[in-house]
Amino acid sequence: MRLASRLDDLGTETAFAVAAAAADWKARGNDVYPFHLGDLDFALAPHIVEAMDRAIADGRTGYCPGPGIPELRAALAEDIGSRRGTAYTPENVTVMTGGKPVITKFVQAVMNPGDEVLYPNPGFPIYESQIEYHGGVGKAYRYLPTDSGFAIDLDQVASLITDRTVAIIYNDLQNPISAESTDAEREAIAQLAVEHDLWVLSDEAYFEMRYEGESTSIATLPGMAERTVILYTFSKKFAMTGSRLGCAVAPPELGKVFGTMNTNDESCTTHYVQWAGIAALQGTQEPVREMLETLRGRRDTACEIVNGTPGMAVEVPKSTFYLFPDVTEAIEIVGARDLADFAQRALHETGVSFCTRNHFGRPQPGEDRRYIRFAYSGLSQERIREGLTGMRQWIEAAR
Amino acid sequence: MRLASRLDDLGTETAFAVAAAAADWKARGNDVYPFHLGDLDFALAPHIVEAMDRAIADGRTGYCPGPGIPELRAALAEDIGSRRGTAYTPENVTVMTGGKPVITKFVQAVMNPGDEVLYPNPGFPIYESQIEYHGGVGKAYRYLPTDSGFAIDLDQVASLITDRTVAIIYNDLQNPISAESTDAEREAIAQLAVEHDLWVLSDEAYFEMRYEGESTSIATLPGMAERTVILYTFSKKFAMTGSRLGCAVAPPELGKVFGTMNTNDESCTTHYVQWAGIAALQGTQEPVREMLETLRGRRDTACEIVNGTPGMAVEVPKSTFYLFPDVTEAIEIVGARDLADFAQRALHETGVSFCTRNHFGRPQPGEDRRYIRFAYSGLSQERIREGLTGMRQWIEAAR
Ligand SMILES: Cc1ncc(COP(=O)(O)O)c(C=O)c1O
Ligand SMILES: Cc1ncc(COP(=O)(O)O)c(C=O)c1O
Repeated sequence: MRLASRLDDLGTETAFAVAAAAADWKARGNDVYPFHLGDLDFALAPHIVEAMDRAIADGRTGYCPGPGIPELRAALAEDIGSRRGTAYTPENVTVMTGGKPVITKFVQAVMNPGDEVLYPNPGFPIYESQIEYHGGVGKAYRYLPTDSGFAIDLDQVASLITDRTVAIIYNDLQNPISAESTDAEREAIAQLAVEHDLWVLSDEAYFEMRYEGESTSIATLPGMAERTVILYTFSKKFAMTGSRLGCAVAPPELGKVFGTMNTNDESCTTHYVQWAGIAALQGTQEPVREMLETLRGRRDTACEIVNGTPGMAVEVPKSTFYLFPDVTEAIEIVGARDLADFAQRALHETGVSFCTRNHFGRPQPGEDRRYIRFAYSGLSQERIREGLTGMRQWIEAAR
Repeated sequence: MRLASRLDDLGTETAFAVAAAAADWKARGNDVYPFHLGDLDFALAPHIVEAMDRAIADGRTGYCPGPGIPELRAALAEDIGSRRGTAYTPENVTVMTGGKPVITKFVQAVMNPGDEVLYPNPGFPIYESQIEYHGGVGKAYRYLPTDSGFAIDLDQVASLITDRTVAIIYNDLQNPISAESTDAEREAIAQLAVEHDLWVLSDEAYFEMRYEGESTSIATLPGMAERTVILYTFSKKFAMTGSRLGCAVAPPELGKVFGTMNTNDESCTTHYVQWAGIAALQGTQEPVREMLETLRGRRDTACEIVNGTPGMAVEVPKSTFYLFPDVTEAIEIVGARDLADFAQRALHETGVSFCTRNHFGRPQPGEDRRYIRFAYSGLSQERIREGLTGMRQWIEAAR
C-alpha cells in the first residue's frame, strides 16, 4: 500500500536510537549511566497528585474545551505574564499536551509551503522536522564558542533572512547547548524580527530552570508581543514530563487558530491533568526550589569531573540541565573515528550513555570542534560522579 | 501578521456553537437539557483511578515511548484482536491521545494533496476537516433511510471512486446516525476497497457500545488487514472521554509512521493514563456492563417519547448513544424556518439542546428529510423524560 510523499520530509528525534542502544547494553547485563535523556527522576509533587485525584472525584473526567479549561488558561496567563513582567489574558493561552505540540502548531499556522523559517542548530530536532514536513525550507543558524559559553552568530542570522523568511525559532536557555542570550543578543534577534516582520517562536521550556539570575522573555521586548508565540511547558519545572501539559502564549488571533487545531487533532488535553496544572502553578513552590537545588549539585559535580577530564572542557551553565562539552581532543586521545564511534565506545567501556552534537541537527559547514551532550537531570549526584569518573579514567588510561 | 493559507481549509466541530448557546441560555437562569454532547456522565471506575495512582506512586511520570508503553500496546493488541476474532501484535498498535488523533494521522499518512478520500455525510465532522486541511478532496457519501434505520448508498460510493481515490473512511456503528452495516453492506465496502486498492479508516469508536448482538470489524474481512486502520478509543466504553486515550491499529509499516508522528507532535500520551488504560482493559468489566444497562434504559425512554411526539420518528438503535430522528413534520408543525430555527426555538421554549444534521456535514443534493441528533449519554433517565416530554408538549401545543 502506498504512503503519502510528505512522509519523506518527516524527521524525528534520533536520540531515541541512543536510548535503544543504552537499553540494549543494559539488557546484556551492563551498568548504564543514562546521560542521554532530557528527563527528570523527581516524583510528582503530592499536592499536584492530590489536585488530580480531587478533580477525578469531582467528575472532571469528561471532554473539556479545546483551548483548555478557563481556570487553567487564567492561571497560566497570570503566572506566565507576571514572571515575565507583562500581562496576558486567557485569550492569549491555548493549553496543549506538552510544549512540543506548540512547535508543529506554530509552524502550520504561520508558514506556507516554500516559506523559510530560521532555527537553531544545534537545537531541538523537532524544529527542523516540522518545518520541512509542512513544506517549508528550514534555515539553520549557528552558535559560536565564546569565552563564557556560546553566542548566536548574529551575522549569519541576518544573512539568512530573505523575502521568503516568515519566522525565526529562538530557544533562549538552549537545549542542547545551555546557552543564554545576553540582553544585546536577544535585542538583536528581536530587532531583526521587527525589521523583517517575522513571527517568532520563543521556546521557553527552560525559562525557570536556572540556578542564578533571572530569565527575560523576548516576547516582552518592543514590537514583539504581536509576533511572538511562547512555548510554555510544565514538563521541566514541575517534573511533569510524562503528564503532557503545556501551552502556547500567542496573540489572540493565533490562539483561536491553535484552539481549532486542538479540536481537530485531539479534542482537548487530559481534563484532570489540567486541574493538576493549576495546583502546580498556585500551590507550594517548595518542590521546585528543592529540585533546582538538587540539580545545581548535580551540575557542579558533573562540571567538575568533565573539566578534570583530559580533552574535555565545558563552561558551567547558569540554566537548563545540560552540559555541552567540547570533546574534540578526548576523541583524539581515545582514537575514536568520529562522534558516533566515541559515544559507542564510551558506552561499552564505561556505561556512560549520551547524545552527541549530531543528534541536534546536521553539522554546519566549517564546524571543526566536536561536542557531546550530558543531561544530568535523571541521575543522582553519586551516579553522576561514578559514571563520569569512569569515563575520565577511560580517557586518562588512553593518554 | 500573516497566517498560513492552509488555515482556510481547516474545519471544526460546529457543535461547539450549540454547546455555547446552551451554556448561554443556562447562564441566563434557564434549565437546559444537554442532548447535544457526545459525552458520558459516568464516573471513572475506581480500579482505573487506582491503577493511575499506583503508576504515579511507582514513578511512571516521565516521558515514555512515542508509540506507547509496551505493556499497553500488548494489552490492546490482545483485547482488540480477540474481540474481533483476529490476532494483532504490539507492532500493530500505536497509542494516541484519544481516538481523534487517528483521523489526522491516517489522513496525513496515506493521502497526498489532490488525492480523494471518501467519507460519510452525515458523519463525524473532523473527517472532512482533516481531508481538506491536508490538501485532499473530500467526497461525501450518503445514507438512505430504510425500513429498519439507514443504509449506505453503495451505488453512490461506487460512483464516487476515481483514479485519484486513495482511501475511504467508514464508521460502522455510526455517529450521528446510529446506523450499523449489514454483513452484506460491510462486505460491499470491503470489496470496493480491495478492488480499487484503497486504504480504509475504520472508525470503531462505538464498536462495544451496543445493547444486543455483536459487532464485526471490516478489518477482519478478506484482503482488509493490510489496508485497514482501526480507530480505537477508551473514551466511550470506559467513560474516559476526558482522559484522552486511544490507539490506531494498523499494518506495522504504518504503525511506525504513526509512532514517528507522535514523537513529532506530542512526544507521547500521558504516561500514567496509559497504565490506567491497562487496568480498564484487564480489570473488572462490571462498570462497562452497568453503564450499558443504564444507557439502554435511557435509550428506551428517549425512543418512546420521541416516537410519541407528533412529526418525529426514529428507529430504536442497537448501538451507540445517539438518536437521529426525522423531524421534518415537527418542523412544519411548530412553523420553524429551518433546522437551526427549530433547534433555537426548542432550546428557548423547552430547554432541550441538540445538534442538527447540519452539524455533521453540508446537506447533500436531493436531501429532503430533516434530522436532529439527540445524545442520551449525559442525562439521567429522569432528565431525559422531563426534557423530551417538554419538547413533545411544545410540539403538541402547536398542532
Ligand atoms: C528546547 C525544548 N523545547 C521543547 C521541549 C518539549 O518538552 P515538552 O513537550 O515535554 O513540554 C523540550 C523537551 O525536551 C525541549 O528541550
Ligand atoms: C465517530 C467518532 N469517532 C471518533 C471519536 C473520537 O473520540 P475520542 O477522540 O474521544 O476517542 C468520536 C467522539 O465522539 C466519534 O463520535
